[in-house]
Amino acid sequence: MKHQTLTNANSVCTNIYGDESPIAAIATTPGKSALTLIRCSGNGCIELVSSVFTSSKKNPLSEEEGNKIIHGWIVSKENEKIDEVLISVFRTPKSYTGEDSLDISCHGGYVVANAVMTALKAAGLRDALPGEFTFRAFINGKIDLTQSESVMELVCAKTDTGRQHALFRLSGSLEKEISKIKELLVQVLASTEIFLDYSEDEISADGDEIAGNLPNKEIALSAIDSLKKLSASWQFERLYQEGVIVVIAGRPNAGKSSLFNTLLKEDRSIVTEIPGTTRDWIEAQISANGIPTRLIDTAGLRDSTDAVEKIGVERTHKILEEADIILYLIDGTQGATEEDKKFIEHYNSAKKYKKTILILKSKSDLDNFIKVSENEKNMILYHTLISFSAKTGDGLAEIFSQIETEIKAQAGNGEFSISLGTERQKKLVDAALHSLEDALTLSYKEEPLDIIAPLIRDAVNSLGEITGEVSTADILEEMFSKFCVGK
Amino acid sequence: MKHQTLTNANSVCTNIYGDESPIAAIATTPGKSALTLIRCSGNGCIELVSSVFTSSKKNPLSEEEGNKIIHGWIVSKENEKIDEVLISVFRTPKSYTGEDSLDISCHGGYVVANAVMTALKAAGLRDALPGEFTFRAFINGKIDLTQSESVMELVCAKTDTGRQHALFRLSGSLEKEISKIKELLVQVLASTEIFLDYSEDEISADGDEIAGNLPNKEIALSAIDSLKKLSASWQFERLYQEGVIVVIAGRPNAGKSSLFNTLLKEDRSIVTEIPGTTRDWIEAQISANGIPTRLIDTAGLRDSTDAVEKIGVERTHKILEEADIILYLIDGTQGATEEDKKFIEHYNSAKKYKKTILILKSKSDLDNFIKVSENEKNMILYHTLISFSAKTGDGLAEIFSQIETEIKAQAGNGEFSISLGTERQKKLVDAALHSLEDALTLSYKEEPLDIIAPLIRDAVNSLGEITGEVSTADILEEMFSKFCVGK
Repeated sequence: MKHQTLTNANSVCTNIYGDESPIAAIATTPGKSALTLIRCSGNGCIELVSSVFTSSKKNPLSEEEGNKIIHGWIVSKENEKIDEVLISVFRTPKSYTGEDSLDISCHGGYVVANAVMTALKAAGLRDALPGEFTFRAFINGKIDLTQSESVMELVCAKTDTGRQHALFRLSGSLEKEISKIKELLVQVLASTEIFLDYSEDEISADGDEIAGNLPNKEIALSAIDSLKKLSASWQFERLYQEGVIVVIAGRPNAGKSSLFNTLLKEDRSIVTEIPGTTRDWIEAQISANGIPTRLIDTAGLRDSTDAVEKIGVERTHKILEEADIILYLIDGTQGATEEDKKFIEHYNSAKKYKKTILILKSKSDLDNFIKVSENEKNMILYHTLISFSAKTGDGLAEIFSQIETEIKAQAGNGEFSISLGTERQKKLVDAALHSLEDALTLSYKEEPLDIIAPLIRDAVNSLGEITGEVSTADILEEMFSKFCVGK
Repeated sequence: MKHQTLTNANSVCTNIYGDESPIAAIATTPGKSALTLIRCSGNGCIELVSSVFTSSKKNPLSEEEGNKIIHGWIVSKENEKIDEVLISVFRTPKSYTGEDSLDISCHGGYVVANAVMTALKAAGLRDALPGEFTFRAFINGKIDLTQSESVMELVCAKTDTGRQHALFRLSGSLEKEISKIKELLVQVLASTEIFLDYSEDEISADGDEIAGNLPNKEIALSAIDSLKKLSASWQFERLYQEGVIVVIAGRPNAGKSSLFNTLLKEDRSIVTEIPGTTRDWIEAQISANGIPTRLIDTAGLRDSTDAVEKIGVERTHKILEEADIILYLIDGTQGATEEDKKFIEHYNSAKKYKKTILILKSKSDLDNFIKVSENEKNMILYHTLISFSAKTGDGLAEIFSQIETEIKAQAGNGEFSISLGTERQKKLVDAALHSLEDALTLSYKEEPLDIIAPLIRDAVNSLGEITGEVSTADILEEMFSKFCVGK
């Protein structure tokens, strides 16, 4: 009995998109921009596009070699000019999808892009479905599933660190790591199965030789070690993708907006400023050590009889419940009040929130700034208290560093050279890990090898699913349907 | 004295962007799309980008020939990978700008595009300003000013016909027409000046020979004819760019929303459906014979004591004032009421509105549909009345055709093979026209040729300004500042 050869994606999965006919899609965001890029792929697509393309060159487009750029015009079947374009020609297998492909760079704007798409469809191409280009790249063996997933991670990256991690996976780092672990397991599996074959054929069936002593156990242990690291990396990586919510709260005039604006200015990697849907809060996307952070400035917290203000305060409490970190401001010229104490006690006692409160004392530059008192110290037992001035910048570095420390703590303090990029990968790594741990447990219990071997094979298959060596139409459909059109 | 040679743009205008250093810009709309295109141009730009690019090819990017595509990675100065890209290489003069240029096709998303731009700037390129690429194309003689303008017209086109017209100008149709007229005038000018030279030198200065009889007068008349046609084309062309507003009005339950939805469905060139800023009206962008049309469905018109409904009715009247065409619906099962009559009389008598009212009678499919009565006929004297059914589609073709007829009437019923694309061009054509007409008037009054000749020269100069042969920094700055970045 030989160990099972892993089947190739090509042979396993059916084409979840139905067919392999030439496809086209607008690959950039349509809008009032200088250019729009339209992508075409599929065998015969160059010939089809050639029928709606004219240029001053003697050779028709269909005879052009790969990696060349041709200037000309997309025309209608009636030979009416649609747009002046540059066409990049790619010849199989040297293209994103591995098929013959074209990138058409046309003028920007909705109408031009639609007109070119109409001409392409009249020529016989069909609209690409979400993720269809990347699916073809996968099916043609250009990239594995972890790389396919990293393409969307890259497009959705919210910070530069997020981009770096996605790019690292796109380069194949995760695929290599998974393959390395899988090879270890295949080694274990192979020697186990040889052992089983040998024992079946040559030795008496008393079971002694085939029980307990899993061959290459130390290799299995090293694989478990690597899988545990990968599994742990997801908690950290997810933070890079999903980010954290930091909410600034405090009584009216405690200096919340000044702090908000100063933090935005200090941080050079601001992505975007988003006006709140209501005037109740404003938020901005910043990067705290590479982790995308929604920084939210809220309405002042105070008991009020005014109906509108009441709604504002209610909403503030709702956001505070969603916060990962609360920056609570005490007005430095007034010191902590009963109201401040009440707030801190409320969010401190409610451990269910599982959030960190950093207490900040504002306006440290003013003459009437009240230094931290014993009363305050008691109040903030178990909390950090930082005095700061939004005006002079005093204490801001400490606030930033504290936010980053807290985020790191929430991320599990991990540092991973290779990390997982999706929930799907995490589930499969955990499945492989559990199969392997079960196998070892049985081995320690000296159970027969022929009930241990299938568990190791399960682990190998789980890892194969991560990279797509083993895959089903269901998995692929679920995965590629999350892509945007044109990708 | 020879006739003045027209100076070339290169020698006339200073670089309104300050310098000719290598520039870069994101040329597609940033967003969560498959790809982003970044454009670079300027002498030395290929060498600069080469310093932050790595690929598996032996030859460095800086040695690549034009119209080739290179796969590789944008890297930081510290050699950290930024993104996997395809670079299209263009060599002077075979590029959009006429300079050495690169198109970098990188992954979509805000973060990737910004990271690549950061690397490019670290390499020594600077951010391009709006219109700077097209300005360089103009300054390097790749396109004239009318073509430069048509690039933005193309991007901003709202309908397919608008796109066609812009593309026709981009192909140089307007430039050729202007040059043709200018050549005619140069002929007139040349013969006039030869005549002036001759008369000064050879003939006595009694003025007889140099007065009145403008040489080649019939050529000047033909130029005037062509200029008048061009001038008239703008009223039509502007409609293609700015579009018209068609508002559906009528009493509650007259069938307004059904008509709105049916018109949208019938029209295959729907561009986009825009939810109103308030619930008071909804609108959609449709194409009526190529003219972009804002179709607006309003709140029912009725006298109401309800405060909220009153605001809705007020807003409806405000939109009606902006409308070019009003589709006024009479409930076909009720016939025209006093309220209907009041509305029609109001907008009919108020000629200041200068708008067309098409009166439509709805629900023609119902048994209790009331056929058009004498009373109604009197009411709608001077108006079209069309019975229709949104359900069966009866009468809809007539409504569409009537809307198109009305729009054509508003456009001046013109049909122009070549049309102007901007207000700037229209002003200069009119200036040329006036100079020329003045010249002819003086000629008829037998005024001396030496006061007529400068007027013809003015006309020639105005035409030269249209194409950019004669241009000043002011004009160029005004023009290119309207472009988007990356163009």
